[in-house]
Amino acid sequence: MHEPLLFKNRTNATSQTAIVGANLCPIQSLDYEVIENDLFKQDWRSRTEVENFQYLVLKWLLAFLIGLGTGLVGCFNNLAVENLAGFKLLLTNNLMLKDKYYQAFAAYTGCNIVLAAVAAALCAYIAPAAAGSGIPEVKAYLNGIDAPSILAPSTLFVKIFGSILGVAAGFVVGKEGPMVHTGACIAYLLGQGGSRKYRLTWKWLRYFKNDRDQRDLITCGAAAGVAAAFRAPVGGLLFALEEAASWWRSALLWRTFFTTAVVAVVLRGFIEFCHSGKCGLFGQGGLIMYDVNSAYPTYSVPDLLAIIFLGIIGGVLGSLYNYFVDKVLHTYSIINKKGPPFKILLVITVSLLTSCCSYGLPWLSRCIPFSAHLPVPDQCSTLGHRSGNYKNFQCLPTHYNDLASLFLNTNDDAIRNLLRSGTEKELHLSTLFLFFVAIYCLGIITYGIAVPSGLFIPVILAGASYGRLTGTLLAPVLNLDVGLFALLGAASFLGGTMRMTVSLCVILLELTNSLLMLPWLMLVLLISKTVADCFNKGVYDQIVKMKGLPYLEAHAEPYMRSLVAADVVSGQLVTFSGIEKVGNIVHTLKMTRHNGFPVIDEPPFSAAPELFGLALRSHLLVLLKQKKFTIHRTMTGPEIMRMFDANDFAKAGSGKGIKLEELNITNEEMEMYVDLHPITNTSPYTVIETLSLTKAAVLFRELGLRHLCVVPKKLGRPPIVGILTRHDFMLEHIQKLHSHVETHN
Amino acid sequence: MHEPLLFKNRTNATSQTAIVGANLCPIQSLDYEVIENDLFKQDWRSRTEVENFQYLVLKWLLAFLIGLGTGLVGCFNNLAVENLAGFKLLLTNNLMLKDKYYQAFAAYTGCNIVLAAVAAALCAYIAPAAAGSGIPEVKAYLNGIDAPSILAPSTLFVKIFGSILGVAAGFVVGKEGPMVHTGACIAYLLGQGGSRKYRLTWKWLRYFKNDRDQRDLITCGAAAGVAAAFRAPVGGLLFALEEAASWWRSALLWRTFFTTAVVAVVLRGFIEFCHSGKCGLFGQGGLIMYDVNSAYPTYSVPDLLAIIFLGIIGGVLGSLYNYFVDKVLHTYSIINKKGPPFKILLVITVSLLTSCCSYGLPWLSRCIPFSAHLPVPDQCSTLGHRSGNYKNFQCLPTHYNDLASLFLNTNDDAIRNLLRSGTEKELHLSTLFLFFVAIYCLGIITYGIAVPSGLFIPVILAGASYGRLTGTLLAPVLNLDVGLFALLGAASFLGGTMRMTVSLCVILLELTNSLLMLPWLMLVLLISKTVADCFNKGVYDQIVKMKGLPYLEAHAEPYMRSLVAADVVSGQLVTFSGIEKVGNIVHTLKMTRHNGFPVIDEPPFSAAPELFGLALRSHLLVLLKQKKFTIHRTMTGPEIMRMFDANDFAKAGSGKGIKLEELNITNEEMEMYVDLHPITNTSPYTVIETLSLTKAAVLFRELGLRHLCVVPKKLGRPPIVGILTRHDFMLEHIQKLHSHVETHN
Repeated sequence: MHEPLLFKNRTNATSQTAIVGANLCPIQSLDYEVIENDLFKQDWRSRTEVENFQYLVLKWLLAFLIGLGTGLVGCFNNLAVENLAGFKLLLTNNLMLKDKYYQAFAAYTGCNIVLAAVAAALCAYIAPAAAGSGIPEVKAYLNGIDAPSILAPSTLFVKIFGSILGVAAGFVVGKEGPMVHTGACIAYLLGQGGSRKYRLTWKWLRYFKNDRDQRDLITCGAAAGVAAAFRAPVGGLLFALEEAASWWRSALLWRTFFTTAVVAVVLRGFIEFCHSGKCGLFGQGGLIMYDVNSAYPTYSVPDLLAIIFLGIIGGVLGSLYNYFVDKVLHTYSIINKKGPPFKILLVITVSLLTSCCSYGLPWLSRCIPFSAHLPVPDQCSTLGHRSGNYKNFQCLPTHYNDLASLFLNTNDDAIRNLLRSGTEKELHLSTLFLFFVAIYCLGIITYGIAVPSGLFIPVILAGASYGRLTGTLLAPVLNLDVGLFALLGAASFLGGTMRMTVSLCVILLELTNSLLMLPWLMLVLLISKTVADCFNKGVYDQIVKMKGLPYLEAHAEPYMRSLVAADVVSGQLVTFSGIEKVGNIVHTLKMTRHNGFPVIDEPPFSAAPELFGLALRSHLLVLLKQKKFTIHRTMTGPEIMRMFDANDFAKAGSGKGIKLEELNITNEEMEMYVDLHPITNTSPYTVIETLSLTKAAVLFRELGLRHLCVVPKKLGRPPIVGILTRHDFMLEHIQKLHSHVETHN
Repeated sequence: MHEPLLFKNRTNATSQTAIVGANLCPIQSLDYEVIENDLFKQDWRSRTEVENFQYLVLKWLLAFLIGLGTGLVGCFNNLAVENLAGFKLLLTNNLMLKDKYYQAFAAYTGCNIVLAAVAAALCAYIAPAAAGSGIPEVKAYLNGIDAPSILAPSTLFVKIFGSILGVAAGFVVGKEGPMVHTGACIAYLLGQGGSRKYRLTWKWLRYFKNDRDQRDLITCGAAAGVAAAFRAPVGGLLFALEEAASWWRSALLWRTFFTTAVVAVVLRGFIEFCHSGKCGLFGQGGLIMYDVNSAYPTYSVPDLLAIIFLGIIGGVLGSLYNYFVDKVLHTYSIINKKGPPFKILLVITVSLLTSCCSYGLPWLSRCIPFSAHLPVPDQCSTLGHRSGNYKNFQCLPTHYNDLASLFLNTNDDAIRNLLRSGTEKELHLSTLFLFFVAIYCLGIITYGIAVPSGLFIPVILAGASYGRLTGTLLAPVLNLDVGLFALLGAASFLGGTMRMTVSLCVILLELTNSLLMLPWLMLVLLISKTVADCFNKGVYDQIVKMKGLPYLEAHAEPYMRSLVAADVVSGQLVTFSGIEKVGNIVHTLKMTRHNGFPVIDEPPFSAAPELFGLALRSHLLVLLKQKKFTIHRTMTGPEIMRMFDANDFAKAGSGKGIKLEELNITNEEMEMYVDLHPITNTSPYTVIETLSLTKAAVLFRELGLRHLCVVPKKLGRPPIVGILTRHDFMLEHIQKLHSHVETHN
């Protein structure tokens, strides 16, 4: 929350003009508190059993629709990527077969650049919020931070098509992160009823027009996204639980699982449909499913040592990766700020570099005859219109180029090649090393360009290649299959970068469909996460921090213990009287960007000034718009109650709320009074000023508040000391006020 | 909490003698709040990095030990049950083979009764808390209710051996529920360092001597128990998450998963060890693992209809089951109250009834020749020292009795017979029907007797039999295998009784190791839970309620919205002065059973009376024991701080705290003063008296509080209105104060 920081102390006339009309508050907080004002209570009392039942049915219907929508988008995504990339690869391959190497390079690079440029243009001009993974933003949203247009329909559109184009353009990016964001966008749109046009939907959805229900829907959406990306319903659920959601309820667990199961069913149906050959170039490749079952995991001491080594390597490489990603993101943000053309230029540059790597490096590799190690060459090689997993590249049709089989393939197929079991000599050591270095570097420089780009795939690719490298190197002393080593390498690198553990473990289990790998996977994840945590934070947390999103951690920081709530309350407090002058309200709303205003009852309405409650900016705007003003200070509560129902105060979609400028209040009206009692939340949470900041932070976070009133301990003072918002718990703010606090922890 | 109800209003002299020395408070609340008093702050400031690291290492070490311990107990449990029950069944079988039917009955029933009587005696005389499933108690503990000796070492001992004897005695009970309780007990004991004798452990474990860390450990323990019972690490995790735990943190997710994975590894090692034949009669049978993989799930409309039917039946039968279990429990509790001999008599009666059913009913069934439907008769029949899954009973060696194969078997083997795929005609319709009716009724009358008795197995048995019955009946129109129908039947009945969904789904998936069943399982669980929820609550919730445990639901009840915090504060408030007379404290501690006392600073120590904080009974007792008293009202804070460290105030194991009677305070000392400031929590959570009760309940529950101070809104009143405890949010209490509240929701 930047608003209190910027505007709390600015009440002098000079700063007014600068503020009003300036760019509207970029980041809003979400409010998970129930606003218990008179209107809410009236509405709550009149709610019937039928309405409660409707609400329940609708919740499940929405969960189903989120699953269906995300599942279908997942299918479309895979279909489009496989066909676009397949067409590109076939074109290149056919030119190569005719020995037209330069034309092949031109065709390959040209396709890539065109696809990349379109993706970048979409992203730069239509929805800049669609760039990147989207997981950090969804995570921040579920923590209570409403970054602008992060879940808007335009973002959804660009996320889907940008992701398809980006992946098809051969970037070292995945479609998994964007799927999570897509799922969240779909959930948000469904909760909003799509658009205001549909009056019917609106009425049904009125109970969902609040941040609490939106949060539940988006949690379902994020889980559905993971489920769609990995075909892992339980993994999706656990991802939402472990990484995405900040709050969790047992009831939501079941609804989320229902959503992810719907996704699983949709994907299953899609694959069965595609088996009949109606999906063009879409084969087994689109949806990740690593069939390494054939290799039976064993447990021996050399394997154990090798796996511990993998875990340590994964932790070190992962934290290094995060470090470089952070640096590159900072650099890119400077370039990206210069405007859309620069964004597109950057994307084209990275695309050119990626194409050169992909096409150039395989020349360093030797040709390997098919018959030697591959069991069914005709199913694997690329012939005619089929795009197989093994590429001839410059070799004879009876040979394949192993590096080309990794580079000149979709990322999913490359992963499948790396994880394949029982094929120790299929990929050379040098190939694996080259591929690892290239992917590691390309992954770092690719994240942050203006295309939707997931991090899972680059990380899995790099991890699997060094895992397989280790497995191949140590093959004489190891019992475990190299394919399984590749899987463990991927796990170690995922653990080192993302620091998720349970959900990754379950996702990888579901992908490989082999419970026997569980102990090894847990071990490697545990080690890599522990090692990496010594150096820096997880990549998503880093990105959240870099984007300046005021994320509230679940635990209070140690330095908070030495402070009390009153220590971090800063700036001037603006309060309203129970019956307030219209002019005062309008002026205050113009002058500040506060979103909550304490309402104080003063004599003659009470014996002494006392806190009546908290009024929200959005509610004040709705109240002012109806212009139910009086000339004198009189209670007009019942009349106001008749004029409104709770619907009018439902949360508007982002950017759709009433603007202060729309109000058109005359000068006479400015001198009149309005009764704030009916819209004031009479039960805001309060803390006494001497409560330790730790406990205030825990309260604020656990209850998902936006405002926390600080009340005085001693008598004879105004009834409220200040309001704590999300921003007041941020280290930067606290350090400004108390430079002595120790933050070494 | 019963204490405020009973004693708040009793301050007159007559009731004093009655209270002091009477049975000590039976149920205590747990306190998850950090007690931020001066001693805590001093300790916290002096905590070094090394200590923090020790704490972290210890957390993981404890998680590992919990997993190891629970896994080993699980192995031992299975080994003992299989050998005891196997011996009994072989004895019976060998007598049957010689046509000595009466002797066989006598041997079978005799064994059963002896085993049952020993189990009952253990339970009745050593640890009555070990009776029943234990899951409701663990659930209540994790909600903040410390029922007496629920996690004591004696309970653990009886739980393990009573469960082994009970299952071996042929009762329709499982060892799964008791495993959860066992896991929780192991976790608690490890957290306590086993015993006070081990000084070394004590020092290391001092950071775990509080309810928060204990809660985490016990969550791990409960998850480990499920993992050990079902060999389902992810299912165990989700069980802890969905059913057991009331609070959850992302960090705990990973630690719990680690614990369940350790369990999985231990069990795996055990099974591999037993494959070499060193485990006596222990075969594949001990650990549930339903290998129905061979049947490939299909999806068709008749199957869909049949499965919806199963779901509805499961819901109806499940809620009926819960209803009857509740009635039977009420009846049994009257019998059990009469004393241990009656408990044992009841157990013997039920055992006799079970034996008669098991031995008598198979006579109604016909003999089926082995060769007809069973592929490998020699592996299935019981011959010599091997206890196979199919029993000859009264038939010729070339025939088997299908009902006897269900009844005269361990429950695990019976389940395996029911779930076996590709064997449509192996079990007759009449057999399945008889078995279902018998198990349904026996299950109802067995739960509640004084032996550790899990509910999973009876429910799975009954569900699988009607599932298989449905599948066999409708076989001509269905595509799905009858074994899968049995599985779906089990799922539907589990959903109907326990109302867990996600964890059951995952447990069943992990048992069958086939992800393809997921959509069907979810459907059937969803339907049965929804249907059953229309009638009554889940069986564990019912038992919690029946036991009178004040369980706090995650959501606030609707009727709370019409009340405010002050409405439910009842009784007289007892407060202490910052420097209080010793006699006053001792008297108050004797007279009330309150556990938290507001400490008020009064003139001359402050300008006006103000709330300094909250002192706990246990801390007051520790303070009084040191006798740092003064003749005059003077601050002795620094001296007291030097006398104590935070260790002295660590939570004592249940029943190990200082007793008021141990203090021996002289009459002179009674007239002296003691400074309460150093031990007073200066940051108790507070709510303003006008806060709606809903919000107070949410705050209380989300933050896991034991005491919530209600402060006045208006000036000129005492600084505290009252204290809310768990008990004040219970419907019974609220209805006593406000008879008008609507509770139809």
